[in-house]
Amino acid sequence: MRILALSADNFEDSELLVPYYRFLEEGYPVEIASIRQGTITGKHGYEVNAGKSLGEIDPADFDMLLLPGGKAPETIRKEQRAIEIARHFFAAGKPVAAICHGPQILISAGLLRGRHATCYKSVAQEMKAAGALYADKEVVVDSNLITSRQPSDIPAFMREIMKKIRK
Amino acid sequence: MRILALSADNFEDSELLVPYYRFLEEGYPVEIASIRQGTITGKHGYEVNAGKSLGEIDPADFDMLLLPGGKAPETIRKEQRAIEIARHFFAAGKPVAAICHGPQILISAGLLRGRHATCYKSVAQEMKAAGALYADKEVVVDSNLITSRQPSDIPAFMREIMKKIRK
Repeated sequence: MRILALSADNFEDSELLVPYYRFLEEGYPVEIASIRQGTITGKHGYEVNAGKSLGEIDPADFDMLLLPGGKAPETIRKEQRAIEIARHFFAAGKPVAAICHGPQILISAGLLRGRHATCYKSVAQEMKAAGALYADKEVVVDSNLITSRQPSDIPAFMREIMKKIRK
Repeated sequence: MRILALSADNFEDSELLVPYYRFLEEGYPVEIASIRQGTITGKHGYEVNAGKSLGEIDPADFDMLLLPGGKAPETIRKEQRAIEIARHFFAAGKPVAAICHGPQILISAGLLRGRHATCYKSVAQEMKAAGALYADKEVVVDSNLITSRQPSDIPAFMREIMKKIRK
């Protein structure tokens, strides 16, 4: 189980770090990709290494996509390569987990029409406008798609992710 | 499995939050106790609620003790009630997990003599002076005691904790 995370500066630290450490605990390697290769810094000052740029990523090399929140998704959603990567995971039916502002990337990719999902409260309006069946719940699972609202939902978010990806 | 965490202001955010969310994912309730009841703030600005003061804690109510790092252990180790709580877990043979500066509390409690353990590199000297069998490894397990050095060790730390406490 190889996991790809897309993020950028001003990520919500806990929404990247908690899943990151959790996947490593389980023995699953995690690749973090960003606008360019190198260090990205979270809203709370944590630094993580983006080992590859979006352009260097072949999504076929990965089994799951993680989209953490914070202000990073606002940056990532403008990148055509990020849109293509997200579409690959949906087309292949691979798990996609997005939390907080993370679903904004899926909105930009036009992937949420008719799908059950949740997100940070300030994103709810544009999620509904994109045709999603929005619910204000700690976690929403719709086939390959797992979404949550905020850091306090992380336990439920990770519980559903692990159910989905464990052999 | 009821977990007690002892911490204070200036905790290392990831060393408290990652285990906290991980235990909740597993369905294990976590009580955070500090000098006094109320909000404590990490080095990176995350706020968590300490539901009880040290004086309000009966360690017999808990099955495992978590000691996260940062600057908080320097505060907690001066509290006689924290020392008594740590001694209860050792006397009862219950799991105790300490990371980074967390083992300082166990040093002050005189609990590490002859025990295999690790800690943050700047704490190694006083750990050895306290009679511990120090090793520079990502995680050291000695019977009920699980120790790690730093945030990047969290995956190994949590892996060994979960092995120890899962039914």
